[in-house]
Formats: sequence, C-alpha cells, structure tokens
Amino acid sequence: MNKAAILVAGGKGTRMGTARSKQFLEIGGLPVLMHTIKAFLQAEPKLDLILVLPQDQFLLWEELCQEFRFDLSHRIVAGGASRFQSVKNGLNAVNFDRGVVAIHDGVRPFVSKKVIQESFRIAEAQGSAIPVISLKDSIRKVSSDGGSEFQDRQVFRLVQTPQTFQLEKIKQAFLTPESDQFTDDATVYEAMGWQVTLFEGNPENIKITTPEDLEYGDFLFYRQQKDSED
Amino acid sequence: MNKAAILVAGGKGTRMGTARSKQFLEIGGLPVLMHTIKAFLQAEPKLDLILVLPQDQFLLWEELCQEFRFDLSHRIVAGGASRFQSVKNGLNAVNFDRGVVAIHDGVRPFVSKKVIQESFRIAEAQGSAIPVISLKDSIRKVSSDGGSEFQDRQVFRLVQTPQTFQLEKIKQAFLTPESDQFTDDATVYEAMGWQVTLFEGNPENIKITTPEDLEYGDFLFYRQQKDSED
Repeated sequence: MNKAAILVAGGKGTRMGTARSKQFLEIGGLPVLMHTIKAFLQAEPKLDLILVLPQDQFLLWEELCQEFRFDLSHRIVAGGASRFQSVKNGLNAVNFDRGVVAIHDGVRPFVSKKVIQESFRIAEAQGSAIPVISLKDSIRKVSSDGGSEFQDRQVFRLVQTPQTFQLEKIKQAFLTPESDQFTDDATVYEAMGWQVTLFEGNPENIKITTPEDLEYGDFLFYRQQKDSED
Repeated sequence: MNKAAILVAGGKGTRMGTARSKQFLEIGGLPVLMHTIKAFLQAEPKLDLILVLPQDQFLLWEELCQEFRFDLSHRIVAGGASRFQSVKNGLNAVNFDRGVVAIHDGVRPFVSKKVIQESFRIAEAQGSAIPVISLKDSIRKVSSDGGSEFQDRQVFRLVQTPQTFQLEKIKQAFLTPESDQFTDDATVYEAMGWQVTLFEGNPENIKITTPEDLEYGDFLFYRQQKDSED
C-alpha cells in the first residue's frame, strides 16, 4: 500500500506574537515542523512526505534545513490562499494514484507513532481514519441570547489530525467547491455523503499555537527524551 | 460580603494507579491539595475555607499538614457517599448565612487568582459564576450507531471550577433529591429553573487525574515559579 503524508504548515504566527511563523519556532532545539516530519518518517520510513509551505517561506525553510542539518526526505509544495487550497495542492502532488494519505497539521509534533500507523491501517480498510479524544471536563452549549445548556460530555469527541483517507476518495472530495462549512478534511470527505471512521488519538497531540503551548511542547519533548533513555 | 470556598477532595486515586489518593500526590514538593488551598487563600485571605475529605483520610491529612508544616487556615468536613453529598456537607458547614460560596475540585491547583476573585464578584452580582474555556480543537458528536457528526466548536465551552454561587440559592438547590442528571454544581442550580452565568476561566486550571497530568502539573508549577522570579 502506497502511503503519503501532507503536512500543512501555512501559519503566519500571529497568535504567537512572534515575527517567525510558529512552525519554525524551536522545541528542544529543533523547529516544530522538523519534529513533525521526524515523527512521520519514524513511524513510516517509506512515506512520500509532502510539506505544504507558503511560497515566501521556501528560502527560509531551506536555510533552516542547512542550519539544523536536517536531511530527512521530504518534498515542498506551495500553499494556497486557504487551508483547503493548501491541502488540495498537497493532494495533487502525491506521487502515486492508489494508496492512503494522511493530512496533518504541521504544528502537531507530538502525534504518536501508534496513531500515525493506525491511521494508515484504518483508512486503508475503512476509507478514512480520524483521531479523536474524549473530554475530561464537562461541556456546555451557549446560545446567542447569552444562555447556556449542559451537554452530555460522553457523546462528544475532540478532533485531531492526522486525518487519513484513501487517496482517490479524498481527491474526489476536494473537487467540491470550497465552503465555509469545511472546518477540517473530515468535513470535506463527509460532504460526499461518506461517513468518517473515528479512532482513539493521543492526548499529547496538541496544536502548538500559543507561547504557552511552546513551553508545554518543551516539557513534552524532554519527557519523551527521558522516557526513551529509561 | 462573606465568602467561603468548599474544596471537594473525595478521589480514591484509581485513575492514577497509585495507592495514595491523587490529591495527596506532590507537585513541586507539595501535595496537590495544599497548592489548591494556597491558591484560594492567596486570592481571598479572609475566606472560610472548607476541605471536604473522606473521613478515613482525616488522620493522613493531619500527618501531611505536620510533615509539610502546612498551617494555612482551613476546616475539615467529612465527605458523603457521592460528590453531591460531599458538596451538601460542605454547604451545611459554611459559617455564615448570607454570602457567596465557591465549590471547587480539590485536584485543580492551577486556578488563577483572577478567576477566583472574579467568580466571587460575578456570583455576588448574578447569583452564579461558572468558569468556562473555548475549544481549540474541532468537535464531533457520536451516536450510538457508530456514526458521528461535525459540530460548530464556537458554540461549545468546556466547564471548570470554581463554580461559585450565592449561598442561599445553592443551599436551596441542594435540597433537591440527588439525581444522575447532576454532573456538576451548575446543573443542580439550574434544576431550580435558574440560569447560570458563564465567565472566562484560565486554561491551565486542569484537573489532576492521571500521571501525565501530574507531570504537566510539575511543569506548570515550575513555570509559575520562574514567572514570579522574573
């Protein structure tokens, strides 16, 4: 089975309050995005790994790869005007016709090996694989009149990435015109009338979007280092 | 305005995989529960602070207070057979008739000073104050047939504690017979037909329920130490 991964890294880093996009900030001395690439290639060494980057960051990325002597195999594709367009550019760049493709937020470096491997296995069998985690806190739904209503947290799941799909199906889904309704790749797939398959994600697989996340990322990184030494 | 806080600490620590209840495990060299007490008394020094503990942990708590030379002012009340009963015991122990009372999970030591102070201020004015945070990930609702449906994450909030109320109203609400429908104190209050007031909580205010949480707690603790030294 052919396998590809599209890492979407389009962020401008505004929430981080830094000039440099968040995907280039460092965790444990290495840019976030390089951690993410490593995670995928360690889980699936033969992966066709496609990094979708804004065109104006290509040069910076090249410089960073030299600076950090980062030589893991990956290809670069230019991002589009929206996340939808960026993913579409990535899908069109996949170098095979039949297989499975994982679409992942570049700023989620802590995806586990198990989640990556399962996502490919499940998507191959089921068409799609969407990692989710349960809620630890209670949840409420707010209404526009300022009121709110208790919800049963058992029936909700938080959705992460990689969202992995059979390539033919997800490419077909991305032929749909872009819509505000598409908040992630699973919703694009569903717009075809297909149901997605959920599976258990790893809770540490957070999106690094704030300075606090970056600090937490450092903590997770050093914990992993420690665990692997034990 | 009289102010009280009820810290509910009934956990048996099963999720933690340790013999000792999670509220007694240490973060930065101090039991979780002592951090929580400190947080409340630093925010509101004149608070009537009531710790609701299982009766069979009274002696252990006393020993820990000696061991850690913990002398912050608090009273101990015996917990009941359920969280509902424990909170009720705490409410009955409050040493005034009119005022506001914060009900808080003993294992949430990272509640901010601002959230504690706001919760009292808002509850005094509005009747109740429930801290909530927005979702960073997408959310889905699962159904019993294995399907799932995308939800608009903008309309959901994760609910934390302290849940703070006017004492007379919450005591009246807790006269209601206990029900499975009550998942937190806000739902007990709402069962009277009263609407709760939500306000913005602090994201670090997590519940320490797993070994990973405890490690994350250590991280948050040392970050706070560092920040206060800067």
